[in-house]
Amino acid sequence: MGTAGKVIKCKAAVLWDQKKPFSIEEIEVAPPKTKEVRIKILATGICRTDDHVIKGKMVSKFPVIVGHEATGIVESIGEGVTTVKPGDKVIPLFLPQCRECNACCNPDGNLCIRSDITGRGVLADGTTRFTCKGKPVYHFMNTSTFTEYTVVDESSVAKIDDTAPPEKVCLIGCGFSTGYGAAVKTGKVKPGSTCVVFGLGGVGLSVIMGCKSAGASRIIGIDLNKDKFEKAMTVGATECISPKDSTKPISEVLSEMTGNNVGYTFEVIGRLDTMIDALASCHMNYGTSVVVGAPPSAKMLTYDPMLLFTGRTWKGCVFGGLKSRDDVPKLVTEFLAKKFDLDQLITHVLPFKQINEGFELLNSGQRIEKNEDTVENFVLDGDTKRRGAGPAEPLE
Amino acid sequence: MGTAGKVIKCKAAVLWDQKKPFSIEEIEVAPPKTKEVRIKILATGICRTDDHVIKGKMVSKFPVIVGHEATGIVESIGEGVTTVKPGDKVIPLFLPQCRECNACCNPDGNLCIRSDITGRGVLADGTTRFTCKGKPVYHFMNTSTFTEYTVVDESSVAKIDDTAPPEKVCLIGCGFSTGYGAAVKTGKVKPGSTCVVFGLGGVGLSVIMGCKSAGASRIIGIDLNKDKFEKAMTVGATECISPKDSTKPISEVLSEMTGNNVGYTFEVIGRLDTMIDALASCHMNYGTSVVVGAPPSAKMLTYDPMLLFTGRTWKGCVFGGLKSRDDVPKLVTEFLAKKFDLDQLITHVLPFKQINEGFELLNSGQRIEKNEDTVENFVLDGDTKRRGAGPAEPLE
Repeated sequence: MGTAGKVIKCKAAVLWDQKKPFSIEEIEVAPPKTKEVRIKILATGICRTDDHVIKGKMVSKFPVIVGHEATGIVESIGEGVTTVKPGDKVIPLFLPQCRECNACCNPDGNLCIRSDITGRGVLADGTTRFTCKGKPVYHFMNTSTFTEYTVVDESSVAKIDDTAPPEKVCLIGCGFSTGYGAAVKTGKVKPGSTCVVFGLGGVGLSVIMGCKSAGASRIIGIDLNKDKFEKAMTVGATECISPKDSTKPISEVLSEMTGNNVGYTFEVIGRLDTMIDALASCHMNYGTSVVVGAPPSAKMLTYDPMLLFTGRTWKGCVFGGLKSRDDVPKLVTEFLAKKFDLDQLITHVLPFKQINEGFELLNSGQRIEKNEDTVENFVLDGDTKRRGAGPAEPLE
Repeated sequence: MGTAGKVIKCKAAVLWDQKKPFSIEEIEVAPPKTKEVRIKILATGICRTDDHVIKGKMVSKFPVIVGHEATGIVESIGEGVTTVKPGDKVIPLFLPQCRECNACCNPDGNLCIRSDITGRGVLADGTTRFTCKGKPVYHFMNTSTFTEYTVVDESSVAKIDDTAPPEKVCLIGCGFSTGYGAAVKTGKVKPGSTCVVFGLGGVGLSVIMGCKSAGASRIIGIDLNKDKFEKAMTVGATECISPKDSTKPISEVLSEMTGNNVGYTFEVIGRLDTMIDALASCHMNYGTSVVVGAPPSAKMLTYDPMLLFTGRTWKGCVFGGLKSRDDVPKLVTEFLAKKFDLDQLITHVLPFKQINEGFELLNSGQRIEKNEDTVENFVLDGDTKRRGAGPAEPLE
């Protein structure tokens, strides 16, 4: 007899409150209700967004199970589920795709109305499937992957190729796709163009991979930390520079380097001043600048609108502008066809029980380079393999 | 014997200095040098940009002959000119297309490096072809159309269909194309979409025509002056509203009206606060907002970057993003095929000698509606027929 229809007892990393470490607890995971899917997690990443919950920078109810970048196997399905079945290899999707809302129906949209961007912490029916010590535990962004089993709405799960290595393709659930999609889907980088990537963390590296895949002939990586240049070159950058190496504004440096022909710039840090630098650095008439790094909340940005008026395009994106259920399986297939290499995004491997150490490593990136925002990537490997790419955030 | 190779004496409206009226003077127009074209002007418009020179808001040398929205006939050509010949009907192009610079070579570019955006007031060889009372008179934006004859670089002239009515298609030289191109080329409005146009002057009406031509199913016009609604409906708006009619922010009003499905917004006024309203009014994820109105110079714009981060696209454009030599002849052909109606953009017809009265009419638009930026259109009709559409500018 299987576990379908029954409550599953398993281990999870529970956050009882903000600014507290994870507790590895035994939790109860209820069976999936109508249009829900219960998933056994095989591998997961640690992402900066998870850390925002710990630090109280992102609204959440507590206790909560965070984590949103994972690979799993469908354990059981609720009534009416038609797109996955038990045994399917899947990636949970923090960005759902209901295929009914305005964003899902628009070819250029992806921010599904069912996204939990307000931290409500429950599934579509308004309730949670987790309990611990008799208390309800909240979900996180429709995913909650720091647990051996989770339950998600059908709109938040994509079936992927059965042969995909879970501990690698989990990155397609967030960090990789956020960067790669920013280049190929949001920026729509054209073959032969020149691209500039501000910030060479895991997401920035993924942007470089996207630019390369789109056929960019020149990809310039920018970071204050030159230790990041080697990996950037490995994944596709054709050259790397530090703004510290010139007294000129970076936009002038880039214009001189390229004969005033920067087609695309990507801000992958989340700093307002870098967003303006990136806008100014793309060609005044036909350049496109994509904001990939999340801006600091409740901060206003001040810039000269003539930068835009002369013809530039300035855009933002969530999850690289990708439609999650449509595009995640395709990216997994492309990975299996060796179109890009996820190994470059993995910096550490840790067992699940060392999850707190993983977050210390995530934060240590900031300490290593105090003057610059950094992005670090992690792998937690153990009973449940865990890997991760952290998106960028500004230094506080 | 023709006039080719000889100096032509003719009438022109000369601005001897800023903040002074035009003087109708007899001027001398030298023959075209290598790669230059001398044109007999048949019709021209009055545009707000011309008024900027009078008011000293746009850098120019004096004396100068302004005017940049016209139709003419090639009188003679200099050595090496291959794209037009004497007798060709043409439109002078304030935005040249040299077909060699980065902007010309990029499919999305149009701001040719030979554009005279710094007010140098001479042709490509660094000299002027006009003299008056023994003094050199400067050119304006490679065109100078408030004269019976002008000389332009070959890169600043497009041959058009011989049957085109000069007094109508002259508007394709600036105002019409600026608005129409913003919709069809820069915004790339998709069929079935919902568009919103902020500012219903001549350029705003041209944006509406572009949205309609692109297949928009709903086009909402916005202006504080309800007198403009009738003409907006005539050219394609499906409804018009005034922000005064609601206490809610216009972005909320539009979201409610459309079921949160505004695909495209166009700012055709040139006000910073309206640019932010227009950005906020398009869909947070897949919306595109196009800045058509020129921002006030040396003013910074402050906004919440989360508006962009969630997926919006914000872009600017000059001349509607159109490539002048390629696209102007096509638009003339489309006009002849009745794809759009330029008559709606013409409000007055005046003889050339009444050019000062034309500018008074242009400015009276502001006086009629003191609380709002306005755009007025003019025709000056006489010895030389003159018509015009004035682009938007902010109230001082």
